[in-house]
Amino acid sequence: MVKKKQYKKSPLAPKSINKLLPIKGITLFTYCANFYNKKRNDLSIFLFHNKSYIAEVFTKSSLRSATLDWNEKALKGKEVQAIIVNAGNANTFTGNNGKEAIKLITEKVASKFNISYKKIFVASTGVIGEPFPTRKVLDVIDKKKSSTKNWLEAAKAMMTTDTFPKGISIRSSIGNEKVTITGIAKGSGMIEPNMATMLGFIFTDASLDQKILQLLMNKFVIQSFNSISVDGNESTNDTVVLAATNVVKFKNKISSINDKRLSKFKKDLKKVFSYLSEQIARDGEGATKLIEVKVMNAQSSNSAEKIARSIANSSLVKTAVYGNDPNWGRIVMAIGKTYEKINVKKLKISFGDYLVAVNGEINSKINEKKLINYLSRDKIIINVDLGLGKKQSNILTCDLSHQYIDINASYKS
Amino acid sequence: MVKKKQYKKSPLAPKSINKLLPIKGITLFTYCANFYNKKRNDLSIFLFHNKSYIAEVFTKSSLRSATLDWNEKALKGKEVQAIIVNAGNANTFTGNNGKEAIKLITEKVASKFNISYKKIFVASTGVIGEPFPTRKVLDVIDKKKSSTKNWLEAAKAMMTTDTFPKGISIRSSIGNEKVTITGIAKGSGMIEPNMATMLGFIFTDASLDQKILQLLMNKFVIQSFNSISVDGNESTNDTVVLAATNVVKFKNKISSINDKRLSKFKKDLKKVFSYLSEQIARDGEGATKLIEVKVMNAQSSNSAEKIARSIANSSLVKTAVYGNDPNWGRIVMAIGKTYEKINVKKLKISFGDYLVAVNGEINSKINEKKLINYLSRDKIIINVDLGLGKKQSNILTCDLSHQYIDINASYKS
Repeated sequence: MVKKKQYKKSPLAPKSINKLLPIKGITLFTYCANFYNKKRNDLSIFLFHNKSYIAEVFTKSSLRSATLDWNEKALKGKEVQAIIVNAGNANTFTGNNGKEAIKLITEKVASKFNISYKKIFVASTGVIGEPFPTRKVLDVIDKKKSSTKNWLEAAKAMMTTDTFPKGISIRSSIGNEKVTITGIAKGSGMIEPNMATMLGFIFTDASLDQKILQLLMNKFVIQSFNSISVDGNESTNDTVVLAATNVVKFKNKISSINDKRLSKFKKDLKKVFSYLSEQIARDGEGATKLIEVKVMNAQSSNSAEKIARSIANSSLVKTAVYGNDPNWGRIVMAIGKTYEKINVKKLKISFGDYLVAVNGEINSKINEKKLINYLSRDKIIINVDLGLGKKQSNILTCDLSHQYIDINASYKS
Repeated sequence: MVKKKQYKKSPLAPKSINKLLPIKGITLFTYCANFYNKKRNDLSIFLFHNKSYIAEVFTKSSLRSATLDWNEKALKGKEVQAIIVNAGNANTFTGNNGKEAIKLITEKVASKFNISYKKIFVASTGVIGEPFPTRKVLDVIDKKKSSTKNWLEAAKAMMTTDTFPKGISIRSSIGNEKVTITGIAKGSGMIEPNMATMLGFIFTDASLDQKILQLLMNKFVIQSFNSISVDGNESTNDTVVLAATNVVKFKNKISSINDKRLSKFKKDLKKVFSYLSEQIARDGEGATKLIEVKVMNAQSSNSAEKIARSIANSSLVKTAVYGNDPNWGRIVMAIGKTYEKINVKKLKISFGDYLVAVNGEINSKINEKKLINYLSRDKIIINVDLGLGKKQSNILTCDLSHQYIDINASYKS
């Protein structure tokens, strides 16, 4: 059992979360399966009524969770009848015990709700390498019956070291039809895209086939869930899912993501992806400041991203921001260690609007007082203009504080 | 001026440092050039009397210090008459001011000691991007005259956030001739090889030509200075130098590093490289534990090194070790995020002799009490046996503690 400390809410948390709108075509159940020694919900089941499809993105880790092997094999057709999510155990490096857990749990859910076990999508987050407590999950599913309309419960039930639940709903439309989008997500350590111990579930009641869902996912995931980083530690379990319940029908089927009827929906879906991923960075373990790294005018997208990620993942840059220290020399270091070719004379570095490095040296006109004042804000933008081309990359991250150490020096034991 | 806090000595520091032996053929001067607001030495000049050569390895950073550009250009022939080293300012991203500083300082040293300014090797460490205080250096060189035989002074004068000076001497021999090796080094943040804000200077009084020196350097630097990491931040200034003063002559010139007369010398030189690089890891910013990551039985050296580095640089692995937490799941994560192919059934992970993961799951026979006891030691070995081939990689690193944050959230301002 995980002895979990509670940490105080991130100072970067939103003041409030608007009520989440349940998605038509889904019934939600939340459970306390006692993964934690503190009584809290830690398990959710999303039950789909219509024929529904999902699109997904997984971690690229070569030692990934048993859940991802299951999802890839069992749900080849991407048809989904239920999603089951737990916090407290990642079901990773759990050997036969982990595989057996998934077999028994999916069979139990299937018989309980009269669905096919091969259409159950499984997601887990928590400690790696601990035996999965299958019995606890089976027992609780057997007992519980009443569903909940409070979707925030599902966001809460998958929190690990998260300090606040992450969710958003948007009332959108496709053509003349009203549709709803609701997304929930969790962070908050091992956050380094492709992807992170990040779970994201985004649902809509619109009728969208799997191909369209996957194209939308691919389009929006890059600049959201794949552009955040907390500590450069890619997780074994990262999963983002986009699912459509096909309740709201359209006269003519949507057969292209360029269909004009999708224009508002795409904007709103992008907002949901961006909002949720930003909340994960805002709830980065120990975060006191949100940092946006913007690398612009690079020769290639790849070069821009490499540099942005190097800055966003540098423990020295992150501790400097934590300490309100305008130590832009560390940004220079983080750029240099990518080995990307740089024209020092063209390189410009600024914190927000405050230019600190230009023409190969420090900007002699810096107003250090104003700069330090800027650095004491809770959102810091680091701009790096390479002056070499037209490509750019934006990465959201957070600072590295004492509390990151507090949390991670005592997570498991 | 750098307002520098003093941190208490690393608990991993050696109990004592043996007296360093001056190298015949070198006169040492140390100075206080007031780079720091606290009175301490921060500048050294090593003056060579005979015709002497150096071999060197530099950082690969694409935004490196002006000093490295100078050394590469001016010392093409690798002949050296003086080495000048300062702490407190890295002379990096200092534009014309930085180049001008080197020009004026080398000219001053040349005229003071009647040598060629083009044979002066320059090394700097400290804050990046601050204007270099050239005047202070020129003034102090003008004044000071008496040399010192206490070589530990030179090790002290290049400390930045180092908490103890690093130096070692070995009385060695080449054939029948007695020779001496003395090395000094400094760390202790931005330590990620190829290389680190690491400066290393290793001297011998033997007669060895530049080709032999460079071959010896290349042979020993890989498993020493290039196999340590503190925080994955490669510095802009890293430099390791091996210099021979050619005082001790041999009947027949050494013309191959396979010359049998070199056998004892090579062993001793290897010890010097290993000792100094280990001390840098032991003095990693905030270090409370030395961590040795040993990856064995990999399919390729490249794969072994990638995995070893991923573990050694993972903030989650390092905080777990700091907290005596046997959270080997994070080692699994760090292996997985390299994307290297792994056979889970063959993978074995142990802390020291304590096997924690085998056969794709937790070792059920773990004695957790003994394991946690082991983890409370001040040197932890993480063994990863991939069972795929015969290649290996060893990386030395340290844990990530609260003090790392203390130090780096307030280094400059």
